[in-house]
Amino acid sequence: MEKSNIPLGTIEIYGTEARNRNFVYERLKEVYETFGYEPLQTPTFEFKEVFTGHHGEGENLLFHLQDANKQDLVLRYDMTVPFARFATEHPELKRPIKRYQMQLAYRDDNIDKGHLREFMQCDGDIIGSQSLYYDADVINLAVCGLKKLGFKDFIIRINHRKIIKGIAEELGYMGKKGLLKIQRALDCADKFGKSEASVEDFTKKLKERKFTDFEIERINKVVFKRYDLQRPQELFETLYHNPSVKEGIKELQEILSYLPEEITRYCELDLTLARGADYYTGFILEGILPQSNVGAILGGGRYDNLVKDLGGTDVGCVGMAFGLDRIWVAMQDMGLYPPRTDPKILIFTPDKVDKSIFELANHLRSHSVNTDICCEFKEYSEVEAYARSRDFTGIIWDKKYHSLVEWDEHKKFILSLIK
Amino acid sequence: MEKSNIPLGTIEIYGTEARNRNFVYERLKEVYETFGYEPLQTPTFEFKEVFTGHHGEGENLLFHLQDANKQDLVLRYDMTVPFARFATEHPELKRPIKRYQMQLAYRDDNIDKGHLREFMQCDGDIIGSQSLYYDADVINLAVCGLKKLGFKDFIIRINHRKIIKGIAEELGYMGKKGLLKIQRALDCADKFGKSEASVEDFTKKLKERKFTDFEIERINKVVFKRYDLQRPQELFETLYHNPSVKEGIKELQEILSYLPEEITRYCELDLTLARGADYYTGFILEGILPQSNVGAILGGGRYDNLVKDLGGTDVGCVGMAFGLDRIWVAMQDMGLYPPRTDPKILIFTPDKVDKSIFELANHLRSHSVNTDICCEFKEYSEVEAYARSRDFTGIIWDKKYHSLVEWDEHKKFILSLIK
Repeated sequence: MEKSNIPLGTIEIYGTEARNRNFVYERLKEVYETFGYEPLQTPTFEFKEVFTGHHGEGENLLFHLQDANKQDLVLRYDMTVPFARFATEHPELKRPIKRYQMQLAYRDDNIDKGHLREFMQCDGDIIGSQSLYYDADVINLAVCGLKKLGFKDFIIRINHRKIIKGIAEELGYMGKKGLLKIQRALDCADKFGKSEASVEDFTKKLKERKFTDFEIERINKVVFKRYDLQRPQELFETLYHNPSVKEGIKELQEILSYLPEEITRYCELDLTLARGADYYTGFILEGILPQSNVGAILGGGRYDNLVKDLGGTDVGCVGMAFGLDRIWVAMQDMGLYPPRTDPKILIFTPDKVDKSIFELANHLRSHSVNTDICCEFKEYSEVEAYARSRDFTGIIWDKKYHSLVEWDEHKKFILSLIK
Repeated sequence: MEKSNIPLGTIEIYGTEARNRNFVYERLKEVYETFGYEPLQTPTFEFKEVFTGHHGEGENLLFHLQDANKQDLVLRYDMTVPFARFATEHPELKRPIKRYQMQLAYRDDNIDKGHLREFMQCDGDIIGSQSLYYDADVINLAVCGLKKLGFKDFIIRINHRKIIKGIAEELGYMGKKGLLKIQRALDCADKFGKSEASVEDFTKKLKERKFTDFEIERINKVVFKRYDLQRPQELFETLYHNPSVKEGIKELQEILSYLPEEITRYCELDLTLARGADYYTGFILEGILPQSNVGAILGGGRYDNLVKDLGGTDVGCVGMAFGLDRIWVAMQDMGLYPPRTDPKILIFTPDKVDKSIFELANHLRSHSVNTDICCEFKEYSEVEAYARSRDFTGIIWDKKYHSLVEWDEHKKFILSLIK
């Protein structure tokens, strides 16, 4: 399809592509519902203050607007902050609150990086509990969600902000500022896997961020190692003596201990994982497809203080988001959409349309057969070309059925309806 | 539920309300699909120029923003203009193009009138044909859509811009400007029905618009009459001699002649109907619920020149939109949502969570049973209060099932899954 004249970093979706996208949307909605999440929809624009102070460097990416009353507004940057606001404003809802939210988010980002400026986030979060079994159920959701979509080969990378804090401390970067420095350094590169290309790319980014060669060597030595959470002594050698690292590992072990092997087999401890948002405080996760270059297709973690920061009283928040746009593209690339099996019929008459045509159309429609009426053309060949271009599966001309696909079952069904 | 601190004219939707709203959305999507429409999604913001020059006074309601590249953008005011742009930019798609689009629209309106500033429009339009049987199928769609949602008592008001043009001419208001004056006068009042209150309200609005008493009397005499399209001689007395009126009536007669009685029985010619947008050129329609005060729940008509005005070559466009927000409220008021029948189970353990709890939860989930895990509370009474507040239908405590609703079928089903 030709390119539309629409703003940079936005997309326009038509026909089969839109139906495929809806397939992803519906499957994820089903998964959230079966996991007991409640649906929430928040406005596209919020008061500017709501989104201030939570996204670090991301705050530069807010879209600003002003309404007729000179009220400063911003487009929804993510779903996490509106949910935290919602929870704070609704003390009458019993805790923990579990909600999912599948809406568009807006970031005025540099589209050279391949980022969209308008994209669909599918968030599920639990507010009001510090119990780690909710962290486990978030990992569970990630794995079940990707399976439900038809993915077989994927990795759930996990890490813990306390481990990153420990790495920062070991390098001499102390306190919140030190954590942020290492966190953003880790986050700046796409490091999917432990390949040499990943290490090189990462090294380059660290240099840009003014880390010394000595520091870079130490960081690389730690983060690019393969770790097994069942044997933390391997981590011990370099990091386990650090109290923050120790705590992070203990939490990750507890979280994974709740899950059956059919879930944990997809999980990998990956110390290069940092996640961008400042607000995470505990475990973090990200989902990737080794056979695709779309990047992370889900991400999240624990962020215990965000609601308090927004003026609320809730402690304990954990959640994750599926990135629908990337999943949609990856599934297209990997051929994961189910083949079409629904009939779509074009009723054509070369003469004048009359009531009987509409009666037939409505009869087919009432049996869930997608049906359109047409008398625009003169020749059958023109009608057929039009019907094929719009993916019709059959034409009814003068009450006779012309099948455009080899679906015997449907042919019988349509014939039974029109006789 | 308490009110959230969100911008004026926006809404926040949670839990059952969101599921009901989704019910409306899904039903309308089904109707569009069975009528052979293709799905389209366009960006939330467009270049400012796209929305300039098509909405008359409505243009003052555009939300403006500017991105980091100083590009002037506006939020999507409606779906019609983006579709016209899309069609123009995609000459490779065979005509006529039939598309539906169900997305949010944004208007910086005076919320005193009860208008939302962010609302869901569900549009279906056909571009590239002047055949009136498409107009008939739009009326057909309106009736079938409302029936599908469960409405039994509704009116599809129809009128024709050429009839309004004739009325303007008869009052001495000639040309495009004259048409606009009468059109906007008709559009300024909510005139559902021919009650005295409607006439009074309308008279007041006409006075505000500087019409003379003589003109107001003549307008009221014409537009508040009950007309029967089968007997246009009644119209003849006052208007039928006007060529524009004659043409409009002939077109409406042809459109309705295509439709079976089970559709036309819902239609009423209503000369007080005008529709706000400037771009309509032919028949116009609006759907109302006599038993509800939500206002028009659908609207549309033929707008043959819009694509040409946007620089395209297509002639002939017709379509309509369901107003999802009003339908959602009306269905709530009228109790039209189906009662809940899906089980939702809370697995509770007062002890430590372990793998077996997650295995049971995933087992239930794999059978489409909405399931959550909880060990936040100490007493069964606390668990039950939490479960009831979140509409759970049952609790599994220590592998024993406690039903919270009187659904014998589901009890059997759940017991069969957990034994």
